[in-house]
Amino acid sequence: MRNNQGRDAEGLEGAKRGENAANAFGWDEIKRGAEEILVEKELLEKLSLNKPLRIKAGFDPSAPDIHLGHTVLLNKLRQFQLHNHVILFLIGDFTGMIGDPTGKNITRPALSVEEVKKNAETYQEQVFKILDPTKTEILFNSSWLSELGTKGMIELAGKYTVARMLEREDFSTRFKNNQSIAIHEFLYPLLQGFDSVHLRSDVEIGGTDQKFNLLVGRELQKHYGQKPQVVMTFPLLEGLDGVNKMSKSLGNYVGISDSPKDMFGKLMSISDELMWRYFELLSFKPTAEIAGLKESAKKGMNPRDIKYLLAEELITRFHSQKEALMAKEAFIAQFQRHELPTDIPVVALSSPAPGMALSKLLKQAGLTPSSSEAIRLIKAGAVLVDGERVEDIQRLIEIGPTHLIQVGKRRFARIKLEKS
Amino acid sequence: MRNNQGRDAEGLEGAKRGENAANAFGWDEIKRGAEEILVEKELLEKLSLNKPLRIKAGFDPSAPDIHLGHTVLLNKLRQFQLHNHVILFLIGDFTGMIGDPTGKNITRPALSVEEVKKNAETYQEQVFKILDPTKTEILFNSSWLSELGTKGMIELAGKYTVARMLEREDFSTRFKNNQSIAIHEFLYPLLQGFDSVHLRSDVEIGGTDQKFNLLVGRELQKHYGQKPQVVMTFPLLEGLDGVNKMSKSLGNYVGISDSPKDMFGKLMSISDELMWRYFELLSFKPTAEIAGLKESAKKGMNPRDIKYLLAEELITRFHSQKEALMAKEAFIAQFQRHELPTDIPVVALSSPAPGMALSKLLKQAGLTPSSSEAIRLIKAGAVLVDGERVEDIQRLIEIGPTHLIQVGKRRFARIKLEKS
Repeated sequence: MRNNQGRDAEGLEGAKRGENAANAFGWDEIKRGAEEILVEKELLEKLSLNKPLRIKAGFDPSAPDIHLGHTVLLNKLRQFQLHNHVILFLIGDFTGMIGDPTGKNITRPALSVEEVKKNAETYQEQVFKILDPTKTEILFNSSWLSELGTKGMIELAGKYTVARMLEREDFSTRFKNNQSIAIHEFLYPLLQGFDSVHLRSDVEIGGTDQKFNLLVGRELQKHYGQKPQVVMTFPLLEGLDGVNKMSKSLGNYVGISDSPKDMFGKLMSISDELMWRYFELLSFKPTAEIAGLKESAKKGMNPRDIKYLLAEELITRFHSQKEALMAKEAFIAQFQRHELPTDIPVVALSSPAPGMALSKLLKQAGLTPSSSEAIRLIKAGAVLVDGERVEDIQRLIEIGPTHLIQVGKRRFARIKLEKS
Repeated sequence: MRNNQGRDAEGLEGAKRGENAANAFGWDEIKRGAEEILVEKELLEKLSLNKPLRIKAGFDPSAPDIHLGHTVLLNKLRQFQLHNHVILFLIGDFTGMIGDPTGKNITRPALSVEEVKKNAETYQEQVFKILDPTKTEILFNSSWLSELGTKGMIELAGKYTVARMLEREDFSTRFKNNQSIAIHEFLYPLLQGFDSVHLRSDVEIGGTDQKFNLLVGRELQKHYGQKPQVVMTFPLLEGLDGVNKMSKSLGNYVGISDSPKDMFGKLMSISDELMWRYFELLSFKPTAEIAGLKESAKKGMNPRDIKYLLAEELITRFHSQKEALMAKEAFIAQFQRHELPTDIPVVALSSPAPGMALSKLLKQAGLTPSSSEAIRLIKAGAVLVDGERVEDIQRLIEIGPTHLIQVGKRRFARIKLEKS
């Protein structure tokens, strides 16, 4: 379900509100949140042509569960759509089907055609919660990269030099440290760049970690006689821990298909500082409105109540306003209207097994003096995990996500269990 | 026409003559002339299995006119054939059909399928003057390299590292000097190596300049679970100038399809020092016989007469013994039984045009004091070019080959005209 309200507030009305020529084609909104724009002047020129641009963004086919981290780019694509540009939603299935030819990385098996197809369907279901399907082309690069053939691959490799490829930061670091770089790693950025040539993209957006690769696309387009794409990079969203990049494998994520209740619990568990970061990169609220909230926080507004606004907005986007309100009420009820303290400690524990029994966890986290005391309290119904009462002493707490644990009325901890 | 006499002398009889186990499978002959054998012990093991080995050699499809420089390897292949091994005569048409993808090297245009086919036919006509067609497989690598596809090319590139590729001498030099290396240049050695994988070659022979590439084949075979090929490198034959590698573009070559007369003239024009090099790399005479000739030269035998033996042997190989003797007689008659002095100077001239009129050339080379004197002498029939009287004062001497010019009875020069 798409949030048409958000679209109106920020999109069409934003364009109407534009006070100068640039804002008439959404300049301020389109720039918002970008880490870098290469080259900004070119983007302004392209936008000022007032015709639909081709906006490319590439996505990994091996992780079809989209989380809020991915939506930073999806939100940006949506903004382009609001100004009638065409979105080239590129699923990089070609390299995904190759896996790791060095055989070193066993965690990166080659995907079958069927797996890619299935992942793609899951992708589409999810991205159309944010994007307008009528202005989105879902594309698979295998369809043209397979056709390149040995000959095309060699010709493409002839368009870039070894020295320039070694300018990529991770390559140059590894090269200096005598860490091996397999030659096919030089081919992947070229293939990604060739996607831009094939698609004749006007703009490509990606994470800051993709900057080099996006620029290769720009260079290759010049080689093929095309007007080079503008490259826009965006920050990588931190996960719930506020430290690492949000990722499924780290467990610090909010999936956009998570239940309203899970979303609410997870979003309420983030730190106040991270909350502002999420507002910047995830909220559709105008910048001025967010500045107002910051002002209110300074004047003493409870950060918890501001977090409520963020959680409500995001759950409304991926579910509905009604479900967002129900999740909020359930959350408040579970915490029995007790205020959450603002200084809940974060405790990291490690476990060799994929999970730890709740009673053991309580003791290790120092929330109870002993395991037997933990068992007593669990049985007495005094222990809440993510706002939910748990009375099973054997309940396994899995490795990965951070859980808000409450023991009795006053003892709180955010516990993150890691693999030891 | 094959020289069966040579085969017998060196091949079967050589094997019969073998005094130890190794020589029973031609060890001494097979090693002869090799610059390096990697690894010699492995070659001995493979040969001692007493079954046909697969001997690979790659040839460039863009130069179908085989000259004596190419025959260094062909002679070696022939020796392997004499011991019943199978020759994989590989025409590297795949990369030839790509040309230069950087667009910098305009002298390397892509060959069409038709051109490759035509060149290959010319190749076969020529190589079967040396090789036994019943033990030779003529192969085109396009037939399997095209099938690799984008995916196969990437997987192949995953089997080798950037650092190892940069160990190739020309790459490391260019890298250090900030001269650009296009990425496709890293792919060519891998494709060449993949040829060995595809062909399951036991031995690959090539010029010393190919050592790195041949070793890549060895490495890749290990990756693909094959017993690695033995690499044998052979010196690059110097051209008639005794300095540069023999090559058609430098004009310092003897083509194996050259007429008996041309061959004789060209071979008689080489220096005495180069003559011994040619004996080593081109003659099928046993090493002991060549050592005997050197001994005779020391004792005063005229080097010209030893050069006759070399010319006769090679013309017999590519034409017939009768034609060799006729060429020799004609050569002697043209020089009117005058002895060639042993200290003929070599004169290099340069010309912007593709040739120079003989009269002008004589003056520039200092063989006549003036052009008018040159014209007079030419008209008087006193000027020989490569042993042939020339009476046309406008006769153009072309850029490239070295010509033996005689003016009157005593003035001689070897003149090489170069493009200025």
